[in-house]
Amino acid sequence: MADPLAHKAQFIAAAQAAADVAACIVRPFFRAGVPADDKADQSPVTIADRTAERAIRAVIGERLPHHGIMGEEFGIERPDAAYRWVIDPVDGTRAFLTGRPTFGTLIALLHEGVPVLGIIDQPVTGERWIGVRGEPTRYLSRLAGQAGTRPCPALDRAELSCTSPEILEGSHRARWDALSRAVKRVSWGGDCYAYGLLALGQVDVIAECTMKPWDWAALVPVVEGAGGSMTDWAGQPLRLDGDGTVLALGNPALLPQACRLLAK
Amino acid sequence: MADPLAHKAQFIAAAQAAADVAACIVRPFFRAGVPADDKADQSPVTIADRTAERAIRAVIGERLPHHGIMGEEFGIERPDAAYRWVIDPVDGTRAFLTGRPTFGTLIALLHEGVPVLGIIDQPVTGERWIGVRGEPTRYLSRLAGQAGTRPCPALDRAELSCTSPEILEGSHRARWDALSRAVKRVSWGGDCYAYGLLALGQVDVIAECTMKPWDWAALVPVVEGAGGSMTDWAGQPLRLDGDGTVLALGNPALLPQACRLLAK
Repeated sequence: MADPLAHKAQFIAAAQAAADVAACIVRPFFRAGVPADDKADQSPVTIADRTAERAIRAVIGERLPHHGIMGEEFGIERPDAAYRWVIDPVDGTRAFLTGRPTFGTLIALLHEGVPVLGIIDQPVTGERWIGVRGEPTRYLSRLAGQAGTRPCPALDRAELSCTSPEILEGSHRARWDALSRAVKRVSWGGDCYAYGLLALGQVDVIAECTMKPWDWAALVPVVEGAGGSMTDWAGQPLRLDGDGTVLALGNPALLPQACRLLAK
Repeated sequence: MADPLAHKAQFIAAAQAAADVAACIVRPFFRAGVPADDKADQSPVTIADRTAERAIRAVIGERLPHHGIMGEEFGIERPDAAYRWVIDPVDGTRAFLTGRPTFGTLIALLHEGVPVLGIIDQPVTGERWIGVRGEPTRYLSRLAGQAGTRPCPALDRAELSCTSPEILEGSHRARWDALSRAVKRVSWGGDCYAYGLLALGQVDVIAECTMKPWDWAALVPVVEGAGGSMTDWAGQPLRLDGDGTVLALGNPALLPQACRLLAK
């Protein structure tokens, strides 16, 4: 098979251009009192989400017209394309709506369903993580931090993160609780930003569920390129038709133990 | 009684100088992999906490040698002084330890037990809230945002925030749940930063418990000066010997309804 990243410079340039444009659109709406509409699943959406997704689609569509695009707000274009972009203009709309600079724009490129490029961009703090399959993750920022996960030696030394207890529905709650009892500490909030922190060696474990492809696709190359692993709660690769569980580990050696706890 | 803020310019200058010094101390330790020690109550403490508290004590002690000082790490000096500073060098040590720029340095001045001056400082994003009793809160920042709470018309339109479900112990959990069911949305994480967001009109309600005086003292002038209220869950003024519950509201008109729910 031909190298799916033979044109990676072009792909990275498109992804960065899209993230730049999204940041320009989102930033003026931050703490500006924009109203939120509730979608069918009760998740909020704003003019920032919608405008940024349209602009990302324009940037990528003009540069790479044969690629597919799937976004949170406006569905799928060219679903049969080998290359498909999966985007979330504002991941963490609740954080965005409450003025927290911990939401992010997520831009991923999948080849035959496998994430090969991912960007996490934080428009307010100016942090950007760029992950490319098979390469070390880059972290571009004015803030402190270096890309690279932490070799946490055991779960009982681990910092666990989760966006919100409300996402832990049904049997997921008990399974997540089993993991949380095995770790050192838990911290809350963060959405995609927590995965960026894991890729900086600040957090060791993230376990979440009810995650859509646009929530996790961009995180895969970022976390893996920093030395970590991204799987579902069973330890299997994330798939577009998966069960919505996501397990990120800074130290992939902890995967069997974490999956055992999450299987209970 | 003489105006307790007759020398307020001097007090504000001392508080700002102390916050400046603390920021200089804390910032280099951010995302720098500092080890954390667990205190008797299991809360973590680092070299950043300890050094910053010593420096704040030095700045205030040299400028205002007759004032008392109470800090999270090193106890009380001159406990009988009419003016007493109450400080938390790193509020949100868990956030600090996981690389989140949502911790803060808290510096408060109390007169006869009443908070008359408070600073919330975020050393990484460069945000600072300054509250002085009887004056409008000031927000100094490179980020967007304006001091002033939001006139949220009813609890069912309110954004509720809480740092972590783990702080909601015993009967507090059921009471908090009653409030959370009455609001529009809940977001997690934030420590003192959430109170800063409430003072910017981004969050409408915060209900927390197990709060120590150094966790809440600086927040009182900031929130009240922005148009909000700071009480315990019974709606009473916060006291140094209180029960550790804290209720912040952007719109004080919602206080009776919130307290009824929290009393259940």
